[in-house]
Amino acid sequence: MFRPGFLWPKGRKTSEEAGFEMVTIQVLKTDTPQPGERANEADNPTSQVMRFGPDQPLRLDCGVDLAPFQIAYQAYGTLNADKSNAILICHALTGDQHAFNDHPVTGKKGWWLTLIGPGKPIDTDRYYVICANVIGGCMGSTGPASTNPATGKIWGLDFPIVTIPDMVRAQAMLIDRLGIDTLFAVVGGSMGGMQVLQWTVAYPQRVFSALAIACAPKHSAQNIAFHELGRQAVMADPDWRGGRYYEDGAHPHRGLGVARMAAHITYLSDAALHRKFGRRMQDRELPTFSFDADFQVESYLRYQGSSFVERFDANSYLYLTRAMDYFDIAADHNGVLAEAFRDIKTRFCVVSFTSDWLFPTSESRAIVHALNASSARVSFAEIETDRGHDAFLLDVPEFIDIARGFMTSANIARGLAGTSLAGPR
Amino acid sequence: MFRPGFLWPKGRKTSEEAGFEMVTIQVLKTDTPQPGERANEADNPTSQVMRFGPDQPLRLDCGVDLAPFQIAYQAYGTLNADKSNAILICHALTGDQHAFNDHPVTGKKGWWLTLIGPGKPIDTDRYYVICANVIGGCMGSTGPASTNPATGKIWGLDFPIVTIPDMVRAQAMLIDRLGIDTLFAVVGGSMGGMQVLQWTVAYPQRVFSALAIACAPKHSAQNIAFHELGRQAVMADPDWRGGRYYEDGAHPHRGLGVARMAAHITYLSDAALHRKFGRRMQDRELPTFSFDADFQVESYLRYQGSSFVERFDANSYLYLTRAMDYFDIAADHNGVLAEAFRDIKTRFCVVSFTSDWLFPTSESRAIVHALNASSARVSFAEIETDRGHDAFLLDVPEFIDIARGFMTSANIARGLAGTSLAGPR
Repeated sequence: MFRPGFLWPKGRKTSEEAGFEMVTIQVLKTDTPQPGERANEADNPTSQVMRFGPDQPLRLDCGVDLAPFQIAYQAYGTLNADKSNAILICHALTGDQHAFNDHPVTGKKGWWLTLIGPGKPIDTDRYYVICANVIGGCMGSTGPASTNPATGKIWGLDFPIVTIPDMVRAQAMLIDRLGIDTLFAVVGGSMGGMQVLQWTVAYPQRVFSALAIACAPKHSAQNIAFHELGRQAVMADPDWRGGRYYEDGAHPHRGLGVARMAAHITYLSDAALHRKFGRRMQDRELPTFSFDADFQVESYLRYQGSSFVERFDANSYLYLTRAMDYFDIAADHNGVLAEAFRDIKTRFCVVSFTSDWLFPTSESRAIVHALNASSARVSFAEIETDRGHDAFLLDVPEFIDIARGFMTSANIARGLAGTSLAGPR
Repeated sequence: MFRPGFLWPKGRKTSEEAGFEMVTIQVLKTDTPQPGERANEADNPTSQVMRFGPDQPLRLDCGVDLAPFQIAYQAYGTLNADKSNAILICHALTGDQHAFNDHPVTGKKGWWLTLIGPGKPIDTDRYYVICANVIGGCMGSTGPASTNPATGKIWGLDFPIVTIPDMVRAQAMLIDRLGIDTLFAVVGGSMGGMQVLQWTVAYPQRVFSALAIACAPKHSAQNIAFHELGRQAVMADPDWRGGRYYEDGAHPHRGLGVARMAAHITYLSDAALHRKFGRRMQDRELPTFSFDADFQVESYLRYQGSSFVERFDANSYLYLTRAMDYFDIAADHNGVLAEAFRDIKTRFCVVSFTSDWLFPTSESRAIVHALNASSARVSFAEIETDRGHDAFLLDVPEFIDIARGFMTSANIARGLAGTSLAGPR
């Protein structure tokens, strides 16, 4: 039923066989995860879990009170005595809480080792770093792949639509439960950056500093279009079965793979694709005159599509793309973004990448201009790189330096230096 | 079996119901075409047909001799006595020979009325205008949807892979059969522009002037990636059946619809999508908190996907995208583009559009630089517009003016003025 190699009509190539010259692809763990394994993560994740009972509903923007529900999270480092050193990491669309540890399904390394760790800008020797799976996700926080306790069946499309504000509201309940009043920092890129912005608008007193990377104050028409394309690819797969595929142990892996391929193109830049692959052929010099993956870029995309479906739930993909589409932080403020940030005390750093065409610099500038109009404290960096939207996940030294500088400066402003857990480095 | 509304999970909206404010969508003819109708066009098109027998094979780049085969074409205007006023129009990936007449399947107007017609830059009162369906197409020239005379069955994936040079070689055989030695002009955009370039390289003596629009000397990695995405969407549809869907009267309309949606996003620009749709909702002010097409851009894309599958064959889409991927005009000249154009006498006009990110201006500049290095006669225009790649099909006055100026100048250089069929205008 679960055929990771589906995208290879004539025999699958692994990443090693594909022989990418300049691309690092982490090797999947030997045992291909089974659908049940992924399903287990939704209800019983390999993470810490905070459960909220029937008396503690999550109020959703769509009007539904979600209860009971749970949040799966990972935490690194140690919370200091006055609970002033907590950093919340917000993950992107297809990310999860496993930012700094190996992934329980794929075995891959954490997705933000470039930024998090001892001596890294988000220093686990100094800070208590929390990363929670978003509501609507599939790695242990309640979402469409979770079991609906009222029916004993998997939620599927009966799960209510969630929004970025809903995700943040759930995170605030987690932070409350952890006894943390003010977060030293909220940090995220892409959909994570949207959450960062939403945190500062919804809970301005609770966020000392905010690092919003490669994001936008609202989702553009082109981005909605790409998301709709992905959703239609999933829904066009007969194995989607109107969202009720769980009952038969099925999964619309073909459609989800195609959706991932489409998204993956948008995460890279034309220049990065040209540099990585150009028109180089795959293990051959002449075209095969067939529909085989003659070009390296084809093999790469097929790999991206098939590896993604091993770890991600198709309905979750529908819900999270929808949440991003709905995001428009100015909408509740008569369309005036500066109004959303009025009198905000949070220290901001906004980062964009020159070759990011999914969340171009102009979107970040709009955020910065609104913050300026609100007399907020904001620094802005546009990083020169050809690596596209994905740059926020990659080892781009200038970006890492900017993040380090901002965190250090916020640390001093917060007076955390004396509370260092690790001592002088 | 053929369900044009497949992309609407909760009831189809017509383009009228969708109520686009700033988008003109031509209304489909009332009777939805049936698969048989499309299949008939492949073998017995509503067009003139030139048939080439077993003794006149088309030599394909893949090494196969294709015979017998046929070319379906439309012709407008009158060929003059010395056969010096013929213009060949080369169509794009999803175009066909119906550039100036109503489409026999959809009933829509010809796709290039902005450029072709009495008094238009490609003046049917002055010129004999030919437009042929490409080899590999599905509107009457031999392709995967045609019947293989050797088996009596539809070719499907047994059809050999074709290339842009193959398409042009077939067109040259058509032109030979029409008794035309030299074409006054070869004109095309996108994949049509690739054919224009190939004509000038393969038959430099037979092309007096060449108008190459929104194209490139080779297909980029990003463009190959988008094509591969489309192919995978088609192949992921169980109704594709390994390309043998014809036998059961099936068609992978879901997969092809998704492929078309992806391609359509690349034909527009971010700015055009923003101007046309922005984040405007569809017939409502508040989100429905569902997967309905809340945003106008979603309805628009769904419409593009579903209307396309009514007229296009899925396998043909695979073959023609592949032909574009393989295109690299410098490859046979040690990678030196200028070598391909050495000593060329053809008059060139190269046109690009500022917001075209599929075939950006840099690609056109590469062509122009190579022509300059070959001391060829070339004019170049980059048209300022936010309408993206699609601009070449739209009424963009500056573009129409450029085309008119180039055609007039070529007309004078060719000494055709005295042979005008229509007299002074």
